[in-house]
Amino acid sequence: MTQSKSGSESLDSMDDLFVEQLQDLYSAETQLIEALPMMAQAATSSDLKQGFQAHLEQTRTQKQRLERILSGLGKTPGGHTCKAMEGLIKEGNDLIKMKGDPTVKDAALIAAAQRVEHYEIAGYGTARTIADHLGHGDAKSLLQESLNEEGETDKKLTALAEGGMFKTGINQKAMQN
Amino acid sequence: MTQSKSGSESLDSMDDLFVEQLQDLYSAETQLIEALPMMAQAATSSDLKQGFQAHLEQTRTQKQRLERILSGLGKTPGGHTCKAMEGLIKEGNDLIKMKGDPTVKDAALIAAAQRVEHYEIAGYGTARTIADHLGHGDAKSLLQESLNEEGETDKKLTALAEGGMFKTGINQKAMQN
Repeated sequence: MTQSKSGSESLDSMDDLFVEQLQDLYSAETQLIEALPMMAQAATSSDLKQGFQAHLEQTRTQKQRLERILSGLGKTPGGHTCKAMEGLIKEGNDLIKMKGDPTVKDAALIAAAQRVEHYEIAGYGTARTIADHLGHGDAKSLLQESLNEEGETDKKLTALAEGGMFKTGINQKAMQN
Repeated sequence: MTQSKSGSESLDSMDDLFVEQLQDLYSAETQLIEALPMMAQAATSSDLKQGFQAHLEQTRTQKQRLERILSGLGKTPGGHTCKAMEGLIKEGNDLIKMKGDPTVKDAALIAAAQRVEHYEIAGYGTARTIADHLGHGDAKSLLQESLNEEGETDKKLTALAEGGMFKTGINQKAMQN
């Protein structure tokens, strides 16, 4: 959710809420574009590194979709800060600084990334539904595309964690004992 | 994700990550127990008020489950702050202070609450999977119970939004025009 510093701070209509939700997502994606390269750098697994890099490209496209929708509504995307994404990224940064086993740290990076994905799934789900109710068909389609991508990224992260990272982390520990 | 101020800051094993994830969720639930009464008070719809109050009771139980699991591992839950939940709650507080139409504000409260639910779904999903891999059957069952509850709460919020709040907000606006 956003808090406008310069714009309207009143939610008088569902149109206002729609713009507010889009601006929140725009701020979230902008922050994520800065954070993903650091997460890719912190990852040890080449699959995870590539996953973060691929999602960076996807995130840039998602940001462009939001610009397109806001522009169509005659609105600017700026002036807002998504405080939840600020918190999510602070967590990621704290994690990157922590010491530990590289595989366990990769598993922790996945856990942090899945929290980010779920935040975005909730945000795009709400925005898509409001677009639908307001009859903004094009916006609904664009938001649905981003929502699908976030869902797919979340599933890929689960597959990486369950198929490899968690087991490897546990096996490594077992081998040390 | 948590950053320990007093405890271990090293993720050397999946056991360390499991404890870190549990402590993060504990901090998140503790903060949410303080925030939910304010969200209930800010809601206009009686269904939404009741929903927040019911989820407060559920959240208290979920916090107790985490205490029970951590106690079983010989760990204390305190000393951690979940920065993502701090951000999520800041957003909710900003929203509560905003002016606007009561139905639109209710729809915005639902949007904020669904972001919280999705954060917790990601967190409990990760913790449940790690518990499974580590062979902590009892912990896995308790975490699965909380995960199911968060999923159900998210669905109830969607039903409230799609079945009522969003449509009512849009109809009210249409009536004003």
